Amino acid sequence: MDIKPFLDYIKQYVELTPGEESILLLKVKVRKYLKGQFVVQNGDICRHESFVLAGCLKTFYIDNEGQEHIIMFAIENWWTADLGSFITQTPADLSVQCLENSELVQIHYNDLQQLYLEIPKLERFFRVILQKAFVAAQKRIINNFSLSATKRYMQFREQYPKIEQRVPQYMIASYLGITKEFLSKIRSLLSLQKDE
Amino acid sequence: MDIKPFLDYIKQYVELTPGEESILLLKVKVRKYLKGQFVVQNGDICRHESFVLAGCLKTFYIDNEGQEHIIMFAIENWWTADLGSFITQTPADLSVQCLENSELVQIHYNDLQQLYLEIPKLERFFRVILQKAFVAAQKRIINNFSLSATKRYMQFREQYPKIEQRVPQYMIASYLGITKEFLSKIRSLLSLQKDE
Repeated sequence: MDIKPFLDYIKQYVELTPGEESILLLKVKVRKYLKGQFVVQNGDICRHESFVLAGCLKTFYIDNEGQEHIIMFAIENWWTADLGSFITQTPADLSVQCLENSELVQIHYNDLQQLYLEIPKLERFFRVILQKAFVAAQKRIINNFSLSATKRYMQFREQYPKIEQRVPQYMIASYLGITKEFLSKIRSLLSLQKDE
Repeated sequence: MDIKPFLDYIKQYVELTPGEESILLLKVKVRKYLKGQFVVQNGDICRHESFVLAGCLKTFYIDNEGQEHIIMFAIENWWTADLGSFITQTPADLSVQCLENSELVQIHYNDLQQLYLEIPKLERFFRVILQKAFVAAQKRIINNFSLSATKRYMQFREQYPKIEQRVPQYMIASYLGITKEFLSKIRSLLSLQKDE
């Protein structure tokens, strides 16, 4: 698979010289995963930041009662990792699993530290995408506090229209923090309103 | 007030030369706020990143029903802002208000963009603190999903022991997303357990 979407993504934020691009490409690897395979399993150390070239993945947490809570989805042009595990290089609380056959560009932790030294503008790149990720996470905290489940679902559909067609409903319910029965009720009510 | 804690904080992450330190100090301002004053009001554009030299602040969101939801507290050596508003320079959804007389080191948005060019290692500094902030926000999402209110309160007490003594109980209830009556019940139960 062509790695061009990865380079195009970076170029939205920083301009790399041909020399810098070559250094970067020497440090990244493209890896294929099958549906059901894990990119990170909780308890292991998350060694890579992964950029999605193709596929769909979920990041989730399993609580003490064995209940799965989906923290985020990732599709083409998204990043995925257990960032807490990655930055501290300690065992992951989260797992990342493929919901479809997926193809990822991966950067190993050690290589990334080296890349920061060799291509300092990558500091800027990751600073900027982290800002966006932080704001999105904070927005989710606010929505969970202040929006009804119906409004959260409508916002989910607006923000991630492409994900909903690729992900089973019970996972969307998990992401929204509601039961799949309740999600089904919300969907029925919304479709009734649409028909009126 | 001495600005040294601000420089010490930065030095934990990056080493500045005396020249770089001088450039930085020309761009930051120390500002005092009285208890009750706002650093950011929702609807205004958040123009500054603020580092707390002294004091205590809350960052909060007011929902459509007029209900206040506390997103975070900030005390000495913490940063505060509506980061979403700051990075996009669009009107803030959040407000930041002083719970005590406070003294902040503030960096204006335009000055920070200039500083990134003049002192590229500040990119690294902000990348690293953003990583930590993102992981903390994600942890909060996970806890809200998977921990009981009692466990979330116990974790809050552990993580922020200094804040609890400075902040009224009803604000802690707002931060935890529960009523103050429920928080009061949790506190009674925990103190009974302690006495047993």
